Amino acid sequence: MSKTILVVYAHPEPTSLTRLFVTETVRILEQQGHVVLQSDLYGMGWKATFDEQDFPNRINQDRLDFIQESQHAYTNHQQTLDVAAEQDKLLAADAVIFHFPLWWFGMPAILKGWIDRVYAYGFAYGYKGEGNRYRYGDGILKGKRALLSVMVGGPVEDYSPRGINGPLEELLFPITHGALFFPGLDVLPTHAVYGSGKLSNANVEKELATWHLRLNHLFNESPIPFRRQNGGEYQFNILADHIAAGKKGLTIHIDN
Amino acid sequence: MSKTILVVYAHPEPTSLTRLFVTETVRILEQQGHVVLQSDLYGMGWKATFDEQDFPNRINQDRLDFIQESQHAYTNHQQTLDVAAEQDKLLAADAVIFHFPLWWFGMPAILKGWIDRVYAYGFAYGYKGEGNRYRYGDGILKGKRALLSVMVGGPVEDYSPRGINGPLEELLFPITHGALFFPGLDVLPTHAVYGSGKLSNANVEKELATWHLRLNHLFNESPIPFRRQNGGEYQFNILADHIAAGKKGLTIHIDN
Repeated sequence: MSKTILVVYAHPEPTSLTRLFVTETVRILEQQGHVVLQSDLYGMGWKATFDEQDFPNRINQDRLDFIQESQHAYTNHQQTLDVAAEQDKLLAADAVIFHFPLWWFGMPAILKGWIDRVYAYGFAYGYKGEGNRYRYGDGILKGKRALLSVMVGGPVEDYSPRGINGPLEELLFPITHGALFFPGLDVLPTHAVYGSGKLSNANVEKELATWHLRLNHLFNESPIPFRRQNGGEYQFNILADHIAAGKKGLTIHIDN
Repeated sequence: MSKTILVVYAHPEPTSLTRLFVTETVRILEQQGHVVLQSDLYGMGWKATFDEQDFPNRINQDRLDFIQESQHAYTNHQQTLDVAAEQDKLLAADAVIFHFPLWWFGMPAILKGWIDRVYAYGFAYGYKGEGNRYRYGDGILKGKRALLSVMVGGPVEDYSPRGINGPLEELLFPITHGALFFPGLDVLPTHAVYGSGKLSNANVEKELATWHLRLNHLFNESPIPFRRQNGGEYQFNILADHIAAGKKGLTIHIDN
């Protein structure tokens, strides 16, 4: 069955590895009969900084309160057109794929600014005006899937379970869990290419072939088993004592 | 003895809690006889997006390779003036304090863009042209201190050791360890204010007083004991088997 996939990407150089992956993603998914929507953040000149320009019709002219203005703008259809368009794409999509290079262990600023601005109050948080009631597995994007495709300059060893940078999936937890699972997306394990700046042409082809296989399973691969806020394992937003008993930290929120 | 402190902050609203903290920081440190440098990212209209405009004199016009151009621009004094000015401030400072609201479990895009752009190759990475030789405790900012002051909208419970968001210090590891300790900064434990949007005036005063006490110990508080890459505990950038034996994840890189 034909699906709709939103591809969000953050690299200005058409010949970069990030963009080669984007091209492959679009080609393969369209070949499979899917509809592909694209958000080329650099190409669109996406405004990274969340500021007063995001609120052309303020509820409070005297003091800029982001949450208050975000709620007002979203609820009253007073958002800027670029933000509303991205929200519409998210709502239309069955899956969202993010392609970006890992910069300082996180997203490039332009992509962080996509999250900051598109994730309005009432949309990605404060869903249904009920504060934190719907999040982490519930929310406006529930039932859709997300997948990060990350180009990592450093070697895989540095990101291994005891590698000096920390394991990649834990470094990305603020994104996978905090930004994607939060509004309800099912998040697939991150796809990473290490040593991305130094790949031979043969290895680029190999990496693209591996990615092709990942894409083939976009809709049947198991997501990261993050625990749902409303799944009975949390009591007042703290993990119940008998779950992952005696443990703490980011990884207890994954049901492994 | 008089020191120089750089204060980097990311909130456009002068009456926001973030900015009240900034004002207090400047007031207290100047009162103590220190020199305070400020980087008001919103006020400066800081360019968040790292792009081709960062390289007015390219080594390669055909293809934008960020690392290559960053190295070329930094080495040959071809950087944009805004980036060079921030690097100069960092070099002049004995400590750097970052004031920002936590947005989606990380920095606002404008601050991430400060890191992306100011952290040039040859400066924050690739120091002395030696790849990864000097990092995590060694590097150009060695001997200086860093401190995050973070305004967190949610309640403290959600960020507790078993709280649903994950512990704050682990969520911030990509920043404290990955962006600050990496080029050599000694990083103090993060100062967080929770429920930052709903504080009564009395509680704001209380939080400012607590912050004042933190500032008083800026130069004698113990930093987070991140393990130094070149301190003998890593073998080929993987933690030696006998250190934190049998454990894995972000926290093994802290010598607790």
